[in-house]
Amino acid sequence: MAKNMKNLLLLSNSTTHGYNYLEHALDSIKGFFGDDHKAIAFIPYAGVTFSHDDYEAKVANVFSSLGYSINSVHNGIPRDIIENSDAIAVGGGNTFQLLRTVYEYELLELIRSKVETGFQYIGWSAGANLACPTIRTTNDMPIVEPRSFQALDLVDYQINPHYLDAHPEGHHGETREQRIEEYLVLNHDKYVVGLREGSIIHVNGDKHILLGSKQARIFKFGKKAYEIEPGTDLSTILV
Amino acid sequence: MAKNMKNLLLLSNSTTHGYNYLEHALDSIKGFFGDDHKAIAFIPYAGVTFSHDDYEAKVANVFSSLGYSINSVHNGIPRDIIENSDAIAVGGGNTFQLLRTVYEYELLELIRSKVETGFQYIGWSAGANLACPTIRTTNDMPIVEPRSFQALDLVDYQINPHYLDAHPEGHHGETREQRIEEYLVLNHDKYVVGLREGSIIHVNGDKHILLGSKQARIFKFGKKAYEIEPGTDLSTILV
Repeated sequence: MAKNMKNLLLLSNSTTHGYNYLEHALDSIKGFFGDDHKAIAFIPYAGVTFSHDDYEAKVANVFSSLGYSINSVHNGIPRDIIENSDAIAVGGGNTFQLLRTVYEYELLELIRSKVETGFQYIGWSAGANLACPTIRTTNDMPIVEPRSFQALDLVDYQINPHYLDAHPEGHHGETREQRIEEYLVLNHDKYVVGLREGSIIHVNGDKHILLGSKQARIFKFGKKAYEIEPGTDLSTILV
Repeated sequence: MAKNMKNLLLLSNSTTHGYNYLEHALDSIKGFFGDDHKAIAFIPYAGVTFSHDDYEAKVANVFSSLGYSINSVHNGIPRDIIENSDAIAVGGGNTFQLLRTVYEYELLELIRSKVETGFQYIGWSAGANLACPTIRTTNDMPIVEPRSFQALDLVDYQINPHYLDAHPEGHHGETREQRIEEYLVLNHDKYVVGLREGSIIHVNGDKHILLGSKQARIFKFGKKAYEIEPGTDLSTILV
């Protein structure tokens, strides 16, 4: 079997209480991409209520401070920009609009094959969901209809980003845990990782390490949900 | 032009703080179906974490107290049960699973054509979303993939059920209003009605009256969101 070359940094979120944009993850991002300059293709499609130019500027501001350059795929032919980069960054926003547009530009197979051969991938929120088998555990509203819910399938489990335990008082919509339990009833085969804000999964070959200061909550059909500690290798438990 | 025969009761929710199941809506349901016995076909498909039998029993318990009988479509051939009923009730739960199953049993056109010729329709939560042009304004997790997001299209606007203004403190997911604003950016032509818990829309021919004690919040691309009072005929403003 070929060596597993996958190298992904999957963030629950971009904005954490008390921090600037992506600031909580700067050390992890620097550790991930390293000291050398990297030319990173940026996928801004999840952004809906602001322009792709504005989104690129916001992200470039963060990555340039670490010594990396950002080139958004909306600046030219998306496939060419990805092919001419060292790595890819997929920003958060609406997961349905993200996946719809990735299909529209026929980028799904390209990104998957690049990452399977060692091209680094960083994604936050919707960008972390895109790395999963499907987008069935997104929290987003289905404001547009993608060709399919099938996503990059770069990890075997589903991430639920922005995982939270709280629930508005007196409100009778489902809790997050109830929503995930509904997913499990109709999807027996998949694990779901409830990734709390501030948490990150670093995929390096066969290892899937939970980073950050918070526990993650693990869900599987027929099992009681449970917590795992930062530093845990998810590959040893999601089997 | 043919007379508009539509007769729908669309509820934001089934369970309201301090009330039993559907109890907040009993007067509206009685006023809607009237004093005579009605044989109501029940669509239980939105239920995920409990059986269709249990769902039917729970709903039948409420409707029988008002003098109506419930027969769930899972008890036989769904199309036949609908054809042999006086009206239809569509229960809440997961909107994606509801629509997926409605497509699976080829019920969408049947229900639409029946309601367009005067067959009464009551739906709550997911069942209210099913009456809309699409399910793009549901709050539910996309745990399964329906054939399409196109729904019954019995009203011209989108309902956002369980509409709420609150937001868990310190959490950086989107507010409900932000989610709807994202919908509007990608769907310029549709109004969205944020239907708070306890609220109901009664569609009777060309009239769409807001029932309950709460205001509803109206959203349209390019307009500032605004509130409408109970008793308002939505058909006079959503033009």
